[in-house]
Amino acid sequence: MKKIRDLSCSEAEFEYEKIRGEYEKYCKSGLSLDLSRGKPNSDQLNASAGILDLSLSREDCINPLGIDYRNYGFVDGIPEAKELFADLLGLDKNNIVVAGNSSLQLMYDALSRAMLFGTPDSTCPWCREEGLKWICVVPGYDRHFKITEDLGFELISVKMTENGPDMDEVERLCLDPKVKGIWCVPKYSNPTGNTYSDETVRRLASMKCAAPDFRIMWDNAYAVHAFGENDDKLLDIFEEAKKYGNENRVLYFASTSKITLPGAGVAIVAASEANIADIKRRMGTQTIGYDKINQLRHVLYFKNAENVMLHMKKLGGALNTKFEILSEALMPLKEAGVAEWTKPNGGYFISLDVTFGSAKRVYELMKNAGVTLTSAGATFPYGIDPEDKNLRLAPSYPADEDLALASKILVLAVLLSALETKIGK
Amino acid sequence: MKKIRDLSCSEAEFEYEKIRGEYEKYCKSGLSLDLSRGKPNSDQLNASAGILDLSLSREDCINPLGIDYRNYGFVDGIPEAKELFADLLGLDKNNIVVAGNSSLQLMYDALSRAMLFGTPDSTCPWCREEGLKWICVVPGYDRHFKITEDLGFELISVKMTENGPDMDEVERLCLDPKVKGIWCVPKYSNPTGNTYSDETVRRLASMKCAAPDFRIMWDNAYAVHAFGENDDKLLDIFEEAKKYGNENRVLYFASTSKITLPGAGVAIVAASEANIADIKRRMGTQTIGYDKINQLRHVLYFKNAENVMLHMKKLGGALNTKFEILSEALMPLKEAGVAEWTKPNGGYFISLDVTFGSAKRVYELMKNAGVTLTSAGATFPYGIDPEDKNLRLAPSYPADEDLALASKILVLAVLLSALETKIGK
Repeated sequence: MKKIRDLSCSEAEFEYEKIRGEYEKYCKSGLSLDLSRGKPNSDQLNASAGILDLSLSREDCINPLGIDYRNYGFVDGIPEAKELFADLLGLDKNNIVVAGNSSLQLMYDALSRAMLFGTPDSTCPWCREEGLKWICVVPGYDRHFKITEDLGFELISVKMTENGPDMDEVERLCLDPKVKGIWCVPKYSNPTGNTYSDETVRRLASMKCAAPDFRIMWDNAYAVHAFGENDDKLLDIFEEAKKYGNENRVLYFASTSKITLPGAGVAIVAASEANIADIKRRMGTQTIGYDKINQLRHVLYFKNAENVMLHMKKLGGALNTKFEILSEALMPLKEAGVAEWTKPNGGYFISLDVTFGSAKRVYELMKNAGVTLTSAGATFPYGIDPEDKNLRLAPSYPADEDLALASKILVLAVLLSALETKIGK
Repeated sequence: MKKIRDLSCSEAEFEYEKIRGEYEKYCKSGLSLDLSRGKPNSDQLNASAGILDLSLSREDCINPLGIDYRNYGFVDGIPEAKELFADLLGLDKNNIVVAGNSSLQLMYDALSRAMLFGTPDSTCPWCREEGLKWICVVPGYDRHFKITEDLGFELISVKMTENGPDMDEVERLCLDPKVKGIWCVPKYSNPTGNTYSDETVRRLASMKCAAPDFRIMWDNAYAVHAFGENDDKLLDIFEEAKKYGNENRVLYFASTSKITLPGAGVAIVAASEANIADIKRRMGTQTIGYDKINQLRHVLYFKNAENVMLHMKKLGGALNTKFEILSEALMPLKEAGVAEWTKPNGGYFISLDVTFGSAKRVYELMKNAGVTLTSAGATFPYGIDPEDKNLRLAPSYPADEDLALASKILVLAVLLSALETKIGK
């Protein structure tokens, strides 16, 4: 097909009728496909079957010092799990808390604590301050935005570039003492798949913040989630922040949700000494301790970080196939000049930009054909994409053949929407 | 021995020297015993070995509707686990959230949500109100008190009687709109072991509260923890509260920490429809969901509530032995007229009242002899027992022979402390 903008009116009418015909056939075929959430598929879950197979003996549960992990204690997690995560992610094992299965919960709890008590750098609990603001890199992760929305922050959008957030804008915003923090998915970002450049990490670590208790929520959800050999490198933000005396600024999160099982993984928070002390103190009131046996299961299953990386290589290969299927299938949209998308080296998402004002329409056309996409707008604060053009595509969940079919329908939906605009339907 | 108050001075001097001699022998023998926390011992943990042995197949993890519990979803817990807890505890399965392993965390999160957002009955978030107060039944559970202390409540003590809290006092306090709630361990209360009478439950359910968003934190931690056939009966507080339109008043908590494993159990919160809707909505922002596989493990292991009760019968029998050892050993203190203690039908604790002003001294004497008790004062808000007389004894953890030895030393320590007072040492 020619570029849609180059079609004559009659050519456009013709293409419209042709594509509508094809599209409507799919609508009648009763499909039920889902590209909406970054969910591992069955094959990926099966790759961690060993962790559920693991039969733990009494001896397995007692550590060399004679401490029984089946019992109470160790609110900050078992030392063996700290070591595993430290090795895997290049963190200091003394500055890690290993918790339950949800890193989102650790993020929420960190901010909820800041609201109720303030941080080690605060002069008062955040809930005593008025008009607080939070920076959201867009397109971004809806569950992040929702946390700060619920906690009452005004959400400020900053554009994502291929090198990370627009840092000029971030630095400008941080001069406002009401701006308390920023959400970051620094590697294989959700949804663009881009990794923050060294310069971006340095600027985040060193920038002037009017709020002394400014926090970078560093959600390294896709730290070890490359599709192949070509793994993006992310600078160590703690090391950079230390150079500027800003190490309290960073709260680092990760989990095994997309390494082992989303429904039964292990999550961590890593931070400076002062932050970790504060977290442990508050957590010591909040909980009697997290599930240590599931931490132990992960340790016994993987044994070391190298094995995690081998496991991730296997998962990455399968995901690569899915991302290839999707991005290959989308090629006609490039020819027609009606969409742009990212092709990341890892992570879970492709960020698809369609033409201005048509993302919602594409979502609706897909829904009518039985394919669920992430809601248009979900990648923006308050669910509102001001240009109505971004769609987050999550190819991980469907089987390859379903994904191929969904991609085909997506191409029809995007073309149809663009042609509708062109011919004024 | 005669009652110490009936001893002459010289008799008291004689007894003092004799007991000091015995006591000092223990001090030199390098013991390390622990009666401090309500921790299950190894035998009890071994009784749940089957839950860690359980090898889960892919098929086990997929429910009849085809939903894969290894994946994301079900923020309020898996239906099978709701059913198990509903049957076990006489709750409505529609009004339960099944979560991670810590019921304390569910309590903390419930109050932290009330602070940040208010409850469905609040006019504003609690953090916007000044001078809030919370009722603590004493002696009570230190971890409860610490939560409300950290959240900034003024803690008001109300005495525990054998029928539950002194309800005249509770009702009087609740006329103050600043009083937002009360901590309750209604069955086999921590530490007295008493169960609230029907009248107490009815009065709590029906009393007038000036605060429209008053909350009863109903921590039914020992719901199925009888030592034998003689199980206390606790009235259903939800049913009573409904009669008075007060069902939003009650937040009900329980866990399997002392059924299966403290380090890897499952916790629940049960509440009215409005409260559960509120909890689910907020939790939906807080977490991606709790560990469903561990919920499933509990379901597959127990299969039904009857099996949980059979399991608890086994655990209760072993605990009964320990409670018998301890209370038998304490008898000389009764003869000497220097202590009173409860003898509950279930739970984890004996509440020991020694003479006015001597609990701290007994704690210290025990410590010097190598036996750790729960700190004197821990059962009171801010860790301060105004009469310095209560000690919480937790006989569950030590092996029977260690417990017998620790009890013997405890008798010496209490007598020694009383004699010290008598003869002015």
